[in-house]
Amino acid sequence: MAAVGIDAMEIWTGKLVLDLPNTFAPVKDEAPAKYTKGLGLTGSSLPDVYEDIVTMGANACKRLMERKGLTPNDIGRIDVATESSFDRSKPASTYIAGCLEQVFDGDFSHTNKGERKFACLSGTQAIDDACNWIRAGRHRGRGALVVVTDTALYERDDPGEATQGAGAVAIYITETPSVVALSREQGIGSKDETDFLKPNQQFPSVDGKRSIGVYLDRVREALHDYESVAGRIHKADVAFLPFHTPFPGMVRKAALMTYRHLIDGTDEANALRELVGEAPDADAFDDAEAYKKARYDHQKAIRKTPLYREWYEATVQPTLSLSRRTGNWYTGSVHIARASALLEAAQHDVDIAGQRMLVGSYGSGAQAEMHTETVCPGWHAEIDALTIVEQLDARYDLSFDEYERVHQAHTYDVEVAVEPFTTPNNEFVFSGYGAMGERQYAYVSA
Amino acid sequence: MAAVGIDAMEIWTGKLVLDLPNTFAPVKDEAPAKYTKGLGLTGSSLPDVYEDIVTMGANACKRLMERKGLTPNDIGRIDVATESSFDRSKPASTYIAGCLEQVFDGDFSHTNKGERKFACLSGTQAIDDACNWIRAGRHRGRGALVVVTDTALYERDDPGEATQGAGAVAIYITETPSVVALSREQGIGSKDETDFLKPNQQFPSVDGKRSIGVYLDRVREALHDYESVAGRIHKADVAFLPFHTPFPGMVRKAALMTYRHLIDGTDEANALRELVGEAPDADAFDDAEAYKKARYDHQKAIRKTPLYREWYEATVQPTLSLSRRTGNWYTGSVHIARASALLEAAQHDVDIAGQRMLVGSYGSGAQAEMHTETVCPGWHAEIDALTIVEQLDARYDLSFDEYERVHQAHTYDVEVAVEPFTTPNNEFVFSGYGAMGERQYAYVSA
Repeated sequence: MAAVGIDAMEIWTGKLVLDLPNTFAPVKDEAPAKYTKGLGLTGSSLPDVYEDIVTMGANACKRLMERKGLTPNDIGRIDVATESSFDRSKPASTYIAGCLEQVFDGDFSHTNKGERKFACLSGTQAIDDACNWIRAGRHRGRGALVVVTDTALYERDDPGEATQGAGAVAIYITETPSVVALSREQGIGSKDETDFLKPNQQFPSVDGKRSIGVYLDRVREALHDYESVAGRIHKADVAFLPFHTPFPGMVRKAALMTYRHLIDGTDEANALRELVGEAPDADAFDDAEAYKKARYDHQKAIRKTPLYREWYEATVQPTLSLSRRTGNWYTGSVHIARASALLEAAQHDVDIAGQRMLVGSYGSGAQAEMHTETVCPGWHAEIDALTIVEQLDARYDLSFDEYERVHQAHTYDVEVAVEPFTTPNNEFVFSGYGAMGERQYAYVSA
Repeated sequence: MAAVGIDAMEIWTGKLVLDLPNTFAPVKDEAPAKYTKGLGLTGSSLPDVYEDIVTMGANACKRLMERKGLTPNDIGRIDVATESSFDRSKPASTYIAGCLEQVFDGDFSHTNKGERKFACLSGTQAIDDACNWIRAGRHRGRGALVVVTDTALYERDDPGEATQGAGAVAIYITETPSVVALSREQGIGSKDETDFLKPNQQFPSVDGKRSIGVYLDRVREALHDYESVAGRIHKADVAFLPFHTPFPGMVRKAALMTYRHLIDGTDEANALRELVGEAPDADAFDDAEAYKKARYDHQKAIRKTPLYREWYEATVQPTLSLSRRTGNWYTGSVHIARASALLEAAQHDVDIAGQRMLVGSYGSGAQAEMHTETVCPGWHAEIDALTIVEQLDARYDLSFDEYERVHQAHTYDVEVAVEPFTTPNNEFVFSGYGAMGERQYAYVSA
């Protein structure tokens, strides 16, 4: 079986930005560093009033199809992964296909459309299904579009408000991938958890502190499960570590844990021990708080070693450059982490073809998935075609008052008329509600 | 590649029944025949107040795992298909796994859990994904549980109210199936349609008349798409025709269309033409209503021929015996149609091993999927293990007043305390809400 993986991707950001250090922090009476250093975020992409999960997803797909010269007949599947669904029955993929049929010749009448849900994880699951469809020989020579799209909004004044974000990534899966080939081996770490959920509500209930621990536990289990089938994976095997990024600070924690696992049993582990000593042993402490403090100090000491810092700068830091500016895109998050690493490599003109990434996806509720991806020879040209940095630069910078109105405009149980802040330009827009309460879409030419 | 398909299934009905001719019709001041003849329904399964999509799904899974001697380690995937989700982020599969971990040794920590949504279609899509996972060799010797589970409720006095239903089917997919092996070939008929949807609402908006036409159009497209890869399929190839059954009357329409396609170009088509003449030609009519009437009369004439009646009685009628008593189970509907056909064959002691079924799934919004299934040698023992007929017989028969209270109890925006009508017995029950608004579940021993 030849490689199966990502042949192309396109990223579409919500067209507004909330500047966290300069606009959000002053109103909250917080130090800007709480956001830029603590969370590791400078801004949140937010959707303009005519944007939603369908428009962002359809716009990303349109650009991808145009750039790759694809027609609807080339697409055998369209799966949407989202936790921002606005319909309990009709999948967002049907709306996106309807949009695309407005501008492309032909139709998606024999394209298998679907929708997957598992918090921020389901995009990776949809890619997995698409790869299996090809590996099983069911695809009739066609590719699969996976669309990860979310408007990650929180209730106003929720602690999560600073980690909001909105955007979509269209990912094209084929048996001749130009970007990355996915490993057949995968690891799963999964447990029924109540860390983050949306029970019959638009905005999430979050137990933020618990969520961090659950993320780390599930990633650890998934890594062990991956190694149980693929064999041990070492530091030298991993060029980049794209992980689900609710905020870059979360990835800093997960990266440290992963680093220690990757070097476990090697000379580097011995060298690290020389520098920072053994990890504290819980059994040696009577007091849980004292143990926690000792563990924190030990981790902090590791973080300060040149060994760790060099690895982190090369392997993790490059995966965060986009999410730092976008906030959490939920299902899109791990996919912009991958894109970010590739963009950084392209920018520094490093040829990483043949190198491997250890990709860690996570969804609250909770489950992590780990697999590896090998960079394909055509990666550089594909990544050069991305326009996401230009899109981020061009976002409309909201005042706090404007942000409040945008948030209301996207709140389902608030009726408010808000004028758009940007002008749609050759793109799909939300155009109003139909007789059955359905959201309707139009294509707006420049 | 060996066969991949359904190794076992278990069906769990909601424990209440609304009798349509005897309880519903009198209150609506309608003739009982409107329901029994027109829709083809005698009753609707409804959930007791301690039942929901999670309890019904988990109870079906528990019985399946116990009967097949499975442990959590044997299960590599749990996918739930539903259009009755109560959480926008956390998939129902995590709740179901959490229930099962209360009673089975071990855990599902390396089981890939997910949730699929596409109206009534997504169970078939989840089975498709599970089969591809095995065909692609990703399963590590494990099987996949697909759980289709819905509480198909409508707003009170909606025309759909008479087609309600609630139940779950747990389907175990392996590479050594005992029940049916699925064809690699499949056909898709798909179009962005506004026939039935739930935009930010619990109960559906339905355009009933349009929905019937959309169903027929998508099934026709899917059949053509199937034949484009599998070759022509003829009447003699099809022992049973399990189709999505929103109500048996809908299948009567789809069956006629399919029959005419299956005999097209054969001697039987000629024989039929001798009996009922050519189908009316739209071009020969000036008046659309007159054409519609002529077409209706022609179809009615076909239905009355012994040729058609014999085929319908043998191939379609057996697929409807369960749904006639349950109403629409949404994602479960096509799967109880399959079970119904197998139950009827078992009851008449006909050995159908090696015979084929043409399975037609449909989801509003809209998409149909067609594939064939070949009955496996072990089918009879598996079907004999089903208890669904006994469960249906044992349902609590609601008065209309009781029905009204049950409907309220399951309406999210109504707060009402309703006493259960039945007593849980060695099963999972909904036990209340947790601090984050999460639904919680307990196992109740007899």
